[in-house]
Amino acid sequence: MNLLHLMVRVLDVEKSLKFYEIFGLKEVRRHDNEGGRFTLIFIGDGKSEFLVELTHNWDETEAYGDGKSFGHIAIGVANIMETCDRCEAEGHTILRPPRDGHMAFVKSPDGISIEVLQNGDSMEVPEKWANYENVGSW
Amino acid sequence: MNLLHLMVRVLDVEKSLKFYEIFGLKEVRRHDNEGGRFTLIFIGDGKSEFLVELTHNWDETEAYGDGKSFGHIAIGVANIMETCDRCEAEGHTILRPPRDGHMAFVKSPDGISIEVLQNGDSMEVPEKWANYENVGSW
Repeated sequence: MNLLHLMVRVLDVEKSLKFYEIFGLKEVRRHDNEGGRFTLIFIGDGKSEFLVELTHNWDETEAYGDGKSFGHIAIGVANIMETCDRCEAEGHTILRPPRDGHMAFVKSPDGISIEVLQNGDSMEVPEKWANYENVGSW
Repeated sequence: MNLLHLMVRVLDVEKSLKFYEIFGLKEVRRHDNEGGRFTLIFIGDGKSEFLVELTHNWDETEAYGDGKSFGHIAIGVANIMETCDRCEAEGHTILRPPRDGHMAFVKSPDGISIEVLQNGDSMEVPEKWANYENVGSW
């Protein structure tokens, strides 16, 4: 597995890019989602694989505050089904099951969202996870 | 510069280490601070330089919640004085000045704390930063 990114919600993309650029973090890639009305901008230091993901929700105008500015820690794993099975067996809440064979969200003991991403190709999805309902938000 | 770590506050160290271990994150180093009554535990994936720092305040019993569970993004820079000067010049709040020549905290446009760390040896501290008062918390 490998640490992938930290997601942070931002209200003003240009202001944020200018701010993080002070520390040498530059845009690596960007994804506009017209349907969801959001943009994801990944910024990095040009050395480490770890990136910071800036999430810009186009219609959001209220300050996120400390409560929502930090989003989640993303971690890539070799077998997302095994990882989610283990989380469940150890009593952790699966916020979003790996129903697409690729992505899941799990709640940490302190309520932080951990995004679990399958390294490489998506996996086949067992019935159990295909039919599992989302829990809360992440 | 280089991305260094993400700090997350945790109430229960053992529970948290067990949780993050599910994703392959293992303890890299630990620092107990008897005076401050806290422990810092850095966990990593064994590959990337980027680490997650678990902060355990010994006397804290109330849930941190989403608001405080995420702490800050730490970034190493080549010249912390120049970086802080630039932050100030561009209108960002210096929460904690680099008065030790080594560490500062700056507020992002969305209120997140960015920890700025001098790469290598500590720098000489200009009078301006030596006498600068802290602002708020970080």
